[in-house]
Amino acid sequence: MTKFDAQWVVGFVDGEGCFYVGVNRNPKLRFGYQIQAEFVVVQHIRDIQVLEGLRHQFGCGQVVVNHGDRYAWRVRDLQHLIEIIIPFFEKHQFHTKKKIEFQRFRNICLKMNDGLHLTEEGFKEIAALAKSLRFK
Amino acid sequence: MTKFDAQWVVGFVDGEGCFYVGVNRNPKLRFGYQIQAEFVVVQHIRDIQVLEGLRHQFGCGQVVVNHGDRYAWRVRDLQHLIEIIIPFFEKHQFHTKKKIEFQRFRNICLKMNDGLHLTEEGFKEIAALAKSLRFK
Repeated sequence: MTKFDAQWVVGFVDGEGCFYVGVNRNPKLRFGYQIQAEFVVVQHIRDIQVLEGLRHQFGCGQVVVNHGDRYAWRVRDLQHLIEIIIPFFEKHQFHTKKKIEFQRFRNICLKMNDGLHLTEEGFKEIAALAKSLRFK
Repeated sequence: MTKFDAQWVVGFVDGEGCFYVGVNRNPKLRFGYQIQAEFVVVQHIRDIQVLEGLRHQFGCGQVVVNHGDRYAWRVRDLQHLIEIIIPFFEKHQFHTKKKIEFQRFRNICLKMNDGLHLTEEGFKEIAALAKSLRFK
């Protein structure tokens, strides 16, 4: 399988990647909401082999249907985000404003890793940071 | 100004670049149509500095408004396509199906460079190739 050059990956993700933090209603959880950090790269099904290659090279995430004929390599596991994805993009920096979204995403993931979202105050703080993740 | 790594450029263009060959009505020209090859990379205005950086690094093309708040680094000059853009992506290959569109685009540009589009038969051949450029 092709091994992608680290700089190719950064260029591709500068264009096609997204960092999200979703705050979704879930009455079963302590504060009634679930916070879900995720990194996704979306492609048309014709390039699913690139998504599979990235999943294989990074050793984390899944390739899943996104919308219709579009697929995503998606990493949701917080440990994989903290130990694999975030260090990679710290080492190999973005050139677009994705750099700012990444820094915000990294900040949220580190706070979640410290368990901040398990206190009410911390939960509110993370939910507010998640809302302002996107670069305007 | 940042110099982008060649592999970063390939990754970014694998995601964000497009190769087009337009066949546009122009009654002033010999066969009533103009054939226009172009390479474009489109970004939101927030990342216009990346487009300017690419234009500067490659030393060709212009940065122009695309639609609304989106801008494009656009290379239309056939000599610049033949001497700068095409050799770069021959040397540094795409990983997505953009590779196939690039090969078709390259094929058309080389035929235009040979003046094939100046004969009626050659013009029709290039117009047909232009129609089937997009990878399905």
